[in-house]
This record gives sequence, C-alpha cells and structure tokens, in this order.
Amino acid sequence: MSDLSYPKSKTNKVNRLGDRGKYDCKTVHEIIASSPVLHVSFSPSAEDFPVILPMIGKLGSFENPSADLTEPLDLYLHGYVSSRIMNLARSSTKENSNLKVCVCATKVDGLVLSLTPNSHSMNYRSSVVFGTASLVTDLDEKLYAMKLITNGVLEGRYENTRIPPDGAEMSSTQILRVSIESASAKVRAGEPGDYDKDLKREDLLDSVWTGVIPMYTTYGEPQPSNYNRVKEVPEYISNYVKDTGNAEKEYALAAITMDEAGAA
Amino acid sequence: MSDLSYPKSKTNKVNRLGDRGKYDCKTVHEIIASSPVLHVSFSPSAEDFPVILPMIGKLGSFENPSADLTEPLDLYLHGYVSSRIMNLARSSTKENSNLKVCVCATKVDGLVLSLTPNSHSMNYRSSVVFGTASLVTDLDEKLYAMKLITNGVLEGRYENTRIPPDGAEMSSTQILRVSIESASAKVRAGEPGDYDKDLKREDLLDSVWTGVIPMYTTYGEPQPSNYNRVKEVPEYISNYVKDTGNAEKEYALAAITMDEAGAA
Repeated sequence: MSDLSYPKSKTNKVNRLGDRGKYDCKTVHEIIASSPVLHVSFSPSAEDFPVILPMIGKLGSFENPSADLTEPLDLYLHGYVSSRIMNLARSSTKENSNLKVCVCATKVDGLVLSLTPNSHSMNYRSSVVFGTASLVTDLDEKLYAMKLITNGVLEGRYENTRIPPDGAEMSSTQILRVSIESASAKVRAGEPGDYDKDLKREDLLDSVWTGVIPMYTTYGEPQPSNYNRVKEVPEYISNYVKDTGNAEKEYALAAITMDEAGAA
Repeated sequence: MSDLSYPKSKTNKVNRLGDRGKYDCKTVHEIIASSPVLHVSFSPSAEDFPVILPMIGKLGSFENPSADLTEPLDLYLHGYVSSRIMNLARSSTKENSNLKVCVCATKVDGLVLSLTPNSHSMNYRSSVVFGTASLVTDLDEKLYAMKLITNGVLEGRYENTRIPPDGAEMSSTQILRVSIESASAKVRAGEPGDYDKDLKREDLLDSVWTGVIPMYTTYGEPQPSNYNRVKEVPEYISNYVKDTGNAEKEYALAAITMDEAGAA
C-alpha cells in the first residue's frame, strides 16, 4: 500500500513545471504532517475576498486509526467556536452542503542563487489539498482528533498533560474534518539551473557566486514557564527537539544534491 | 509617519482573541517582508474550490520608491506566464475588474506547552492582506518589481548578477501587483497561559512540564554550485546569512518574555 496516489484532475494538476508535481499520498501527506502551521482558504461568498487562516491541523483516520501517511486520510483542523470558518462550516452542515476549502503547507529548504535574477529559485516542498470541511460532532471522533492534533505537533504530549478535556473544553473547541477530494505536491530541490547563454560567459562565471543557502527550522532549548516545577525537561520533549531539528537540517542539506524534481 | 494603520472593517477585523490583532502598517508589513514565501488565495469561480499558491512577493511602491514599511505599499508577486493566477489576472484586466486575492504570511516562533491540551498554543506572527491583483504591463514598473523581489529575498543580489533581464526573460516572467484594500496581523507571544482550575492542582504542577520550545529559521553555510568559480562567499551573502539567522533566533527567544499580544 505504499504507492497510492491522488488522481490527476483539473483541480490538482501541477501545470507550471509539471515534473515537479507529485501525487502520491506519501509525499503529499508527509509535507503536511511535518508543517507546524497550515494555510486554510475558503470563500465566504462569491462577492467577498477569499480568506486565508493559518491553522493547526493533522492527518488521520477515525475509521482506520492505524492508517499511515501512505494511505487515504482525513485532515483534522483545530479551531474555536466563534471563528468565521467554524460558523460557515456549521451553517453548511445544516444545508447539507459542505464548505469547500483549500489547504496548503509549504516548507522552504533553501535559497537557490544563479547567474541571473530570472533563474533564481528556492528549494521547497509544498502540498495543496482540496476538500470539503464539516464540523465534527461525534464526541469520540472529536477526542480522537484532539489527541491526533496534540501529538501531531509534539509526539507524546497528550498523555503527559491533564486529560481528558472537560465539558467546557469539549464545547469551546471545535474540530473541522476535511474530506480530501484531491491533492498534489510540488517539490524543487537541487543546484541552481542556469541558461546556456549565461553559462558560456566567462565574465559572469568569474564574478557571480552561485549556489544554495540551506534553510531549515531550528528548535531551541526548551524554556520553562514561570510556574513550571518539573526540573528536567522530559525525554519525549528533548528527543523531539533534537530529532526534529536534525531531520529538518538533514533534508535541507540533502536537497541540494537531489535532482530538480526532488529525487535523491 | 510611523503610526499609519489599516482601518478595521468586516473583512480584516480579528474576531477571535481580538487583543492579538494589529492593524498598523509596520507590524503587518514587517511580517510579510521577512517571510520567504507567501500564500496567495483566489477563487477561480463560485463553484470551484478556492486555490492557494505559494508565491514569492515583496512590498514596495513604484510611485514612491523610498517609502518604508510604515507607509502604504503595494505587494508585488512573482510568477510565470502560464500559471493559472496570471491568466485569471490577465482576463480580469480585460474586463476591467481585478482579481480578488488574499495573501497570508505566517512565522511560527515557538511551541507553547501548558498543563492541558486545550490551552496549548504557538507563538506566531501572521499577516493577512486583502486586495485586487492585476498584471504589471509597464516595463519600468516590471523592472522595478523584479529588483524589489530579488533584493527583498537577499539584499544586494540583483546588482551582483547578470542584469538587466533580456527580452525573453521580460516576457516569460510576469509580475502581479496587489493593491491592498485591507490588512491585519495577529501576534501571539509569551508564556503558556493556563486556567486557574489547573494551576490550583499540585499534582499537575508537579508532573507536567510547561514552557516554550523556541522555533526559528536557520540559514546554513552557503553551498557553492558545481559551476561556481568565485572562491569566497561574497560579504553581502555571508552577512545576510549571519544577520537574518540571528534576527530570527533573537525574536523567537524574545517572544517568550513578551506579553500575550506581542509587546515587549
């Protein structure tokens, strides 16, 4: 089950530089899973501006909780009762027509510096998901999603805090489930790419530095709150800081020697 | 001129946790200016899904090129002739009705770990801009925007490469100018915030580590391309790597001791 892919359609097809397009669940899902924040877009009405909200969200399957990132999954988004998208989702559920959303996650892995401004680029990974969002009303599914999201941000955190959420918390927190209809990813990796017309010019090669500045997210030393009493930073936290930071750095460096479409 | 603000309206008002909302040009613009990638949303039609594209964009004013981030600015986005948003912008220009877009930039500064999952948060800064996008057709403005965008990513890069773009490059690259109608920012900083009901529980305080894991973008050692001949990394590049990386780290650490709404 490791090569399931989203079918290509008008909605998700990567038109520009199509060789950078990826449709397999693993690539699409991994970018979303490793992004601390997602950008969620919806259109309040045809006349209004589209709206983007930065939200926290994680992939999972309530029906099939052991599913991994290579399999079909739903996207659970965390929000508040009062927010605009939650109200829209609530009213669309009533009318039985769900809210259409687009969700995008992007990671920048490096600045790609070439001989001329127009061939400059970035190494990056982005995933875009199209789906319909509806409010999760089933309490078991809501609890599943709360744990999924908390542990998706920091593995092991949920069970190391005061759980379960009480009644007031269950009702003030809303979860949106996005049923994914279509998705794709776009990956750029590798060295700069320059035009032959520039690569032939000795004066340029002798004067313009070309290469990649790697970029990655660093997780700093955990800073205790002013009411923290637990002296040692727990291992699941210190391991997360170390492992996640290392993985980000390693990918950004490895990306430089991949081919353009992101294959090692 | 340092306290110009976007007027609050139905479109840009921060409803949820309104004290985190900021409307001054400086705050809104700085978050966008320091983000390597922006998320741009548009609605192809009322029936379609909204679409988000990750794009590179920078703020500037062709009419008033010395304007700084505290002043009214346009947002210039970089793209390609063939991409969907450019085609939509082109057709909307013909009908004299511009394309409505929403542009969002988000920086995550830390994971905020509290006693119970529902009070967990992130330190972050996000800006959202609503405006109408149109294709830049004036050649001088297009050149202005190309330099703005290149140097907005890495100050000094434009003049240190092969310029100006030739005819083919000028026509294959398109620039969208977003006239900003409305904008706002949302900033969360500071320590975890827990409910009194949890802060009263000795068992929780004795067992749950609370605090902030700072997060920031690190810029690694520049890696020369396989055709690079310039032995030393130029100073404008090494300074950028050092200064930008330091600034990101300093902010993420400083954010922990700010109050919730992001004031030092």
